[in-house]
Amino acid sequence: MRLPMHVGVIPDGNRRWAVNNGMTKEKGYDKGLSPGLELFKLCEKYKIKELTFYGFTADNTKRPKLQRLTFTKACVDAVEMLSKENADLLVIGNYESDMFPKKLLPYIQRKRFGTGGMKVNFLVNYDWKWDLSDMTKGIKSNDISRVDLIIRWGGRRRLSGFLPLQSVYSDFYIVDDYWPDFKTEHFEEALLWYQKQDITLGG
Amino acid sequence: MRLPMHVGVIPDGNRRWAVNNGMTKEKGYDKGLSPGLELFKLCEKYKIKELTFYGFTADNTKRPKLQRLTFTKACVDAVEMLSKENADLLVIGNYESDMFPKKLLPYIQRKRFGTGGMKVNFLVNYDWKWDLSDMTKGIKSNDISRVDLIIRWGGRRRLSGFLPLQSVYSDFYIVDDYWPDFKTEHFEEALLWYQKQDITLGG
Repeated sequence: MRLPMHVGVIPDGNRRWAVNNGMTKEKGYDKGLSPGLELFKLCEKYKIKELTFYGFTADNTKRPKLQRLTFTKACVDAVEMLSKENADLLVIGNYESDMFPKKLLPYIQRKRFGTGGMKVNFLVNYDWKWDLSDMTKGIKSNDISRVDLIIRWGGRRRLSGFLPLQSVYSDFYIVDDYWPDFKTEHFEEALLWYQKQDITLGG
Repeated sequence: MRLPMHVGVIPDGNRRWAVNNGMTKEKGYDKGLSPGLELFKLCEKYKIKELTFYGFTADNTKRPKLQRLTFTKACVDAVEMLSKENADLLVIGNYESDMFPKKLLPYIQRKRFGTGGMKVNFLVNYDWKWDLSDMTKGIKSNDISRVDLIIRWGGRRRLSGFLPLQSVYSDFYIVDDYWPDFKTEHFEEALLWYQKQDITLGG
């Protein structure tokens, strides 16, 4: 089986899931935590080398305050949860902004947790303009490699600011189900689909 | 009808079309010209403000020489064809490289043809690293605006180096048919699909 080295994940549909289930929009984010851990374990099982989660971007912080606080907390919880696993963890995003949760400051340099292993990147207040803002030193996300496969939940077909430079050759797989309805099969079907892609990197 | 302001086009599948039709790979590029004009006229009809074609990228020039010469010629022909229309035309790409066809040098600054109107951008030897290579002046493609809708022919689900920064919020529509089999309905179905997308730009 030809596997992607680096999988990107856009776990979208939390708010729509909550509304469909008779909750207020922000309740959906809580439901996104355990799928995140399930997906991490699947990537371990398939020996994926690098995994990047879309937490939130600077653009997302324009949403109503209650939503913002809720998805920020969900990201803090997710990163702390992942720090209990075996991973080389990095939180990437504009940490000089008030929108960056202080609790995640210890993670802005890559750090080994447990026995290490998979590179796990988590976008928190990520902003591609910030990423490019000091090109004399290269892009700020230079520790994150090219993404081979991006899986997006929730049916939208867009990157929404996810690592534009690492995604120039990514294959893009869409799951129509919302992220809180994550199933193992979503991931496995994405891997099977990836097998059939003809990877040439333009050449 | 809510229309995309800026449509990006990845006209892929020329080589696979040629092979399926019993020709050698490079014969497909010729068949891509008239669909390009048809698509341009459709965009005029729908009053699309800006249209960007993926011609080729610097990565594409690694392919066998005969292929490279053929797709380069197809791009020259396409740009010259578009210059007979009413358009504000720009060819964007690394024009300092030998891979950039000299015949297209007159187009590396935006120029009005006919009565002007639609902004038409054509990527020729485009390279995102080149685009970012002198960030003190901003990106080199700064005259090209955010892309709302990207339509890709040929079934692949990736950007392949298409304007990464302008594409951070683009909605991505895939046509499984190969580009030489272009039909009006492909474009119109993409516009209908675009209607149903919830455009928030992250907010």
